[in-house]
Amino acid sequence: MSIDQINGFFNPKSIAVIGASSKPGKIGYAVLKNLLEFQEAGGKLYPINPKANEILGLKAYKSILDVPGKVDMAVVVIRSESVPAIIDDCAKKGVKNIVIISGGFKELGGRFRDLEAEIAERAKKYGIRIIGPNCIGVYDPRTKVDTFFQPKERMLRPPSGNVAFLTQSGTYGIILLEWSAMDGLGISKFVSYGNKMDVDEADLLLYLLNDKDTRVIGIYLEGIGDGRKFFEAAKKVTKEKPVIVLRGGWSELAARAALSHTGFLGGKGRIYEAAFKQAGIIQARSLEELYDMTKALSRQPTTRGNRVSMVSNGAGPMVQAVDYLSGAGLELSNLSDETKRKLREALSPFVIVDNPVDLTGSATPNDYQIALEYLLNDDNVDMIFVFFVHQNAPMSEEIVEVMDHINKLANKKGKPILAGAAGGPYTISINKKMEEVGIPTYPTPDRLVAAAKALYLAGLNRI
Amino acid sequence: MSIDQINGFFNPKSIAVIGASSKPGKIGYAVLKNLLEFQEAGGKLYPINPKANEILGLKAYKSILDVPGKVDMAVVVIRSESVPAIIDDCAKKGVKNIVIISGGFKELGGRFRDLEAEIAERAKKYGIRIIGPNCIGVYDPRTKVDTFFQPKERMLRPPSGNVAFLTQSGTYGIILLEWSAMDGLGISKFVSYGNKMDVDEADLLLYLLNDKDTRVIGIYLEGIGDGRKFFEAAKKVTKEKPVIVLRGGWSELAARAALSHTGFLGGKGRIYEAAFKQAGIIQARSLEELYDMTKALSRQPTTRGNRVSMVSNGAGPMVQAVDYLSGAGLELSNLSDETKRKLREALSPFVIVDNPVDLTGSATPNDYQIALEYLLNDDNVDMIFVFFVHQNAPMSEEIVEVMDHINKLANKKGKPILAGAAGGPYTISINKKMEEVGIPTYPTPDRLVAAAKALYLAGLNRI
Repeated sequence: MSIDQINGFFNPKSIAVIGASSKPGKIGYAVLKNLLEFQEAGGKLYPINPKANEILGLKAYKSILDVPGKVDMAVVVIRSESVPAIIDDCAKKGVKNIVIISGGFKELGGRFRDLEAEIAERAKKYGIRIIGPNCIGVYDPRTKVDTFFQPKERMLRPPSGNVAFLTQSGTYGIILLEWSAMDGLGISKFVSYGNKMDVDEADLLLYLLNDKDTRVIGIYLEGIGDGRKFFEAAKKVTKEKPVIVLRGGWSELAARAALSHTGFLGGKGRIYEAAFKQAGIIQARSLEELYDMTKALSRQPTTRGNRVSMVSNGAGPMVQAVDYLSGAGLELSNLSDETKRKLREALSPFVIVDNPVDLTGSATPNDYQIALEYLLNDDNVDMIFVFFVHQNAPMSEEIVEVMDHINKLANKKGKPILAGAAGGPYTISINKKMEEVGIPTYPTPDRLVAAAKALYLAGLNRI
Repeated sequence: MSIDQINGFFNPKSIAVIGASSKPGKIGYAVLKNLLEFQEAGGKLYPINPKANEILGLKAYKSILDVPGKVDMAVVVIRSESVPAIIDDCAKKGVKNIVIISGGFKELGGRFRDLEAEIAERAKKYGIRIIGPNCIGVYDPRTKVDTFFQPKERMLRPPSGNVAFLTQSGTYGIILLEWSAMDGLGISKFVSYGNKMDVDEADLLLYLLNDKDTRVIGIYLEGIGDGRKFFEAAKKVTKEKPVIVLRGGWSELAARAALSHTGFLGGKGRIYEAAFKQAGIIQARSLEELYDMTKALSRQPTTRGNRVSMVSNGAGPMVQAVDYLSGAGLELSNLSDETKRKLREALSPFVIVDNPVDLTGSATPNDYQIALEYLLNDDNVDMIFVFFVHQNAPMSEEIVEVMDHINKLANKKGKPILAGAAGGPYTISINKKMEEVGIPTYPTPDRLVAAAKALYLAGLNRI
């Protein structure tokens, strides 16, 4: 089967929604409604429903075979038992790509497992590629393909960008995309593939390897079907683009739960640990870590050096960041005597000039600028962590401009910068501005350090 | 020294701000401004500044000795070198409680260390109790004591409630309070004590033991000065109220950083691990975990049983929650045959009836209600995790009412309920409503499981 055909999921000219519904609150209604933007962008959209003439202002068809023109892709939201006949219809109509949103297959076991196998067999015979079943499908912000059953007023869509997310769990997919949207983090391709009866991570990885829009790939994985296929694909891809994986269902207890989630038995215990490492995959320990690492790799350069310098106007988070450093394979830089002397001369006598640099609660944005310029010029520094207490009276929003300038300087030198700050609406609004100028921002030092680890590991992978 | 005198920090009738400034952006301006609410609530507020006649509409005094009436408490924001003389003045004026916000003491080492020791000695002689220096001080939402230099438009204040936070790091204190405010989590007492030249965690713990407003105590700790005093106090308190501690500076590298943060050497390596356990302290691994655990203990009953049941309309987070269970000392409940039969009869055939219960993406709030009532009535279930994909089309805001009802049922049975949901503004708004009806809500399963662990450990402590 051809990898090129996977491109059809992201770039169809026409989409039929099989099981489109006219009732708000129904899955078949939400899917059709979310695809209206695809239609507005010039795509053709066909609701298929044997009992409707029109849905959401679109002419509805009783069968996909009644659609006058060509149909490139079908999104299926009908009951599982009715799907096999639909595959036949799709084949007759020349459909090459199908996304099956519906559940009620392998994850239920027994005859439903057989049902899924039968559909997979028919699709293979017809040369049709399938994403799903039991998933939320595909999102491509460039082409407006959006097969989700989550209404837009309940679920933000992120802008287009360089991050690809692949996920076995639709729930995690939704969360990752909304976090991205809130940070303004751009997405290249998104696929939730559920039971992966046909298209799997390996297919998608190889597709993304050659996708010029994709710079980094984040994956949530419950069970690896064909381990050899997966690790071979991963090995190829990680030489070019960082791949971060979060695994679910690795405990024996959870493996059983995963079986009735997407019909896959999770990796037992930590068997796969070494294989992941060998394939150059960066492993995340939680959903937040998967997101945090992906964001860092989307916005900042990787690094081959592990010597970190820190600066803040509130030292608590730096003390903890240092605690977490060695677990992430990172070290504290030894600042050069020249750097220390310059910092000492330029900053208030109450500033603690060492690594970390503690600017204290009296610090202004200007103090940050002075400190960061000297740190960036120190050859002993490979990357920089900047923590902020934006809430402090002597700070101001000027810090965003300062950091924009510093970030540009840093990127020229290939030195990544990660920021830490947390709090309420004011800090959240400044964090958002930091993200907009390209500085990934994390609420706590443990999360920042994990993101830094990803930048370091990804740098080593490409040597 | 008397523990009762500590009460003076939370219930003064009059406060002098020594170093009050008329310049916005200055620490002495922000502190005075934040105390205006204390004055509006009937407290007396005196700006002390040798060069001003009036600040923020209040008559200013050149010295605290010029203030006509009694002064119960002083908040000090002047340079460290000028503090000793101020202590003498405060003593003459009969001040019993001083909060020193200013830094520039022990954390700088050398003569500044001596300066701090000298102040401590004078205060002891005069019978004055001191919080700080190098801190953000005290917040009590009931009496409006608020010594922060973070303006209110930049930093939310939480409402009054049953959580006490103690922290060596002001930065962490700010974050904990703003997270609390966003979740509507109420605070009884807050103290950031920085270098703790006098009042330390042990004093505050013993005070909080008898504070009827406080139900749970969360602490961020960098270095324990008098270990014996601390662990003895903790042992007493944890029998009555849960105490959660996050430690910073436990790595050798970070211990040095902590030394120049608050002048304390952090616990070397993991020496204290066993002592914490023995004292009945619940240990948090990150700031988020400290907050998450505290929130659970504030809102939900503790439990002596460790058998968890889960339900969701999106299984990914449940698969991962199961992964994390055994690390937290928790188990999956074996649902009774009766419960399974009833669930099977009441719910759609596509629902996966087992533990976890997967209601699938088609679930409505009513499905949750049915499932949760049966789970609560099962004697094999000690606590319940409910995960939501609020973004799904078939869901609605009715889920809040359903959960309010379920939470009341659960609390009658002494079975805690924790919720999981994450996403953008829509989900955040529903999460907030869940918090309002008393259900602690977490973005990810790892964070939810850690909170559940705290409920379990706190339950064991009281046996």
